[in-house]
Amino acid sequence: MSNDRYGLSRVIGEKGVLPQRARKLDPALPCREAELLIDVESLNIDAASFKQIKDEVGAEPARIAARVQEIVRERGKMQNPVTGSGGMLIGRVKEIGPKHPAHGELQPGDRIATLVSLSLTPLVIEEVKAVHPSIDRVDIRGHAILFVTGLYAKLPTDMPDTLALAALDVCGAPALVARWVRPGMTVAVLGAGKSGALCLAQARRDLKGQGRLLALDISEQALATLKGLGLCDITLKVDATQAVDVMEAVSRATDGALCDLVINCASVGNTEMASILSVKDGGAVIFFSMATSFTAAALGAEGVGKDVTMLVGNGYVPGHAELTLELLRAEPALRRLFETRYV
Amino acid sequence: MSNDRYGLSRVIGEKGVLPQRARKLDPALPCREAELLIDVESLNIDAASFKQIKDEVGAEPARIAARVQEIVRERGKMQNPVTGSGGMLIGRVKEIGPKHPAHGELQPGDRIATLVSLSLTPLVIEEVKAVHPSIDRVDIRGHAILFVTGLYAKLPTDMPDTLALAALDVCGAPALVARWVRPGMTVAVLGAGKSGALCLAQARRDLKGQGRLLALDISEQALATLKGLGLCDITLKVDATQAVDVMEAVSRATDGALCDLVINCASVGNTEMASILSVKDGGAVIFFSMATSFTAAALGAEGVGKDVTMLVGNGYVPGHAELTLELLRAEPALRRLFETRYV
Ligand SMILES: NC(=O)c1ccc[n+]([C@@H]2O[C@H](COP(=O)([O-])OP(=O)(O)OC[C@H]3O[C@@H](n4cnc5c(N)ncnc54)[C@H](OP(=O)(O)O)[C@@H]3O)[C@@H](O)[C@H]2O)c1
Ligand SMILES: NC(=O)c1ccc[n+]([C@@H]2O[C@H](COP(=O)([O-])OP(=O)(O)OC[C@H]3O[C@@H](n4cnc5c(N)ncnc54)[C@H](OP(=O)(O)O)[C@@H]3O)[C@@H](O)[C@H]2O)c1
Repeated sequence: MSNDRYGLSRVIGEKGVLPQRARKLDPALPCREAELLIDVESLNIDAASFKQIKDEVGAEPARIAARVQEIVRERGKMQNPVTGSGGMLIGRVKEIGPKHPAHGELQPGDRIATLVSLSLTPLVIEEVKAVHPSIDRVDIRGHAILFVTGLYAKLPTDMPDTLALAALDVCGAPALVARWVRPGMTVAVLGAGKSGALCLAQARRDLKGQGRLLALDISEQALATLKGLGLCDITLKVDATQAVDVMEAVSRATDGALCDLVINCASVGNTEMASILSVKDGGAVIFFSMATSFTAAALGAEGVGKDVTMLVGNGYVPGHAELTLELLRAEPALRRLFETRYV
Repeated sequence: MSNDRYGLSRVIGEKGVLPQRARKLDPALPCREAELLIDVESLNIDAASFKQIKDEVGAEPARIAARVQEIVRERGKMQNPVTGSGGMLIGRVKEIGPKHPAHGELQPGDRIATLVSLSLTPLVIEEVKAVHPSIDRVDIRGHAILFVTGLYAKLPTDMPDTLALAALDVCGAPALVARWVRPGMTVAVLGAGKSGALCLAQARRDLKGQGRLLALDISEQALATLKGLGLCDITLKVDATQAVDVMEAVSRATDGALCDLVINCASVGNTEMASILSVKDGGAVIFFSMATSFTAAALGAEGVGKDVTMLVGNGYVPGHAELTLELLRAEPALRRLFETRYV
């Protein structure tokens, strides 16, 4: 299979199963034609997965290291068998197969971060060099493989890894916002945390000085910070689970007009109706919150007879990593916010 | 509250709660300014709710009637306290408040069906006239109230109620399809059942003779029927839970090009990846299936690096009822299919 875009040929013993679902991957060398080989420096393990491992074996670094090695030896990938989740990795490009699209774009030696989950990335650990329990990180010597469809970002040299990773973690959000915001719109961001701040900054650019930008959050302090940094026009302190309260606050702030676009970046569940009710007829909602319920959104919009376009926030939009890093460079206030709060 | 679009003033004892979530509604007369009053003929109770009632009190009509009356007396609406679901009703317009948008459109005496759930519709039952356990229907004398945002459809006189209701049940699907299909597209419908057939017929119209229409289903016979009626160009017998199989079948049928738009109308879960993998980069998926998982769609698209616009199928699009009834009138083959299979 020379055109194995999804890494199906790396799955052991289960035909027609994608690597993410597979019980076991084959991470053996050599690197194949349509693959990218990485010399791995460190694994950033998903928070839920790292916690499960700590709960299981205790906080001692040697025991965590042993458990991580055991999982990767058994599965050929760092996918926690209990939580199902992975994480991402940092490393240097070692080899680029002639049929991999990074050919020409990346050079051996370039430092990259993977933007697809470790739960689908073939991995071999030769040695664990250090475990950093406070930041869910494991430094290793070993190799990993990216398929044609496996997303990555070249790590910038003008900012620390930690800053770049914090932004890359949610880079799909501002990139999708850039596709939907037009000058003159009234745009609201519900949940003004890490991804919310990036969405506000991106929306601000795409509004080009026309339109209105609302930030909604339960935390007065988060809102004050954003307002202080000039990332929004209006702040509304609301509980996003209280749909009618949110609608009334948005209605007052927009003279009854409501929003053209609501971007849901809340970290809690049960916020679908607040988003739907805050949009004017013919408007749109982008749901990024992973706590979004499909049926609550679909049945909710129908129940209130709202003509609203509802989008599932896709974590991938072409160019999303570059767009997000550029945003940090172009907006010093945003960069400072990330440095103080999310690094 | 003269502009109470959502019926908040009909909720008893819970401020800022929408009627659907409310424990109890006040269905008392008179009809208010922004309301529509209906003389109810019959309730079509949601299948899950009707089954729960039968399981609880037994199949005897008098006991089912008593339980339905008890629920409506307690809650002011026919929302099953166990399943949470409602259903819809048929009746005649009795009064149209001066601030209700149907003013001018409907006349007292017109027969209508409500397209919003009974779980949010104030209702009084004066008398149960008959219970029809085989079709989940209860004939009553009583009244119900629709808010400004409460959807309804005028019942046509040129087809039986049962036929109209079967189509109106899923009328949001073809109406949203009409918004997204353009001539020249390659469009696939996954799950060629009731809503799938309407989506195919609507897509056929919007393609205007250019493009390709694929029907995918697990049932060979359903596909043969659709092909025989001329509702699609290509049929593919696939199991939509097998993502890679579906992608390979779609790829073969489209010479590797894949689809511009996939419409997911499958009645089973775990079909997100089949939809995503069958779309070309830059394409779109509309998820109508209520078994869709938000996280499976969001994380799935990112995991395979697919640039795909993913829509939550909103059950309401303006004009959806008229569009769907028109489709049945204009496509005799579709009408015959509905008459033989879904009535
Ligand atoms: N699909 C994608 O590609 C994608 C991309 C980006 C983000 N996401 C998802 O989006 C969500 C947010 O991510 P994040 O990193 O931005 O999280 P975050 O930094 O924790 O931000 C969430 C914000 O929501 C606020 N919030 C919590 N409860 C609220 C309530 N009841 N009402 C109003 N606001 C409330 C939080 O305020 P407090 O701090 O006061 O609690 C916080 O400011 C997550 O589910 C994430 O997975 C998905
Ligand atoms: N949001 C909205 O407004 C809206 C509108 C319309 C529909 N919907 C939802 O869409 C879904 C479908 O509704 P419907 O009334 O069209 O249902 P339906 O008539 O039962 O059609 C579902 C079709 O999916 C097929 N199917 C079942 N398992 C499959 C599999 N593994 N692979 C491929 N096909 C499979 C079924 O085939 P068999 O008959 O052989 O099982 C059937 O032909 C429901 O969840 C419904 O609630 C939502």
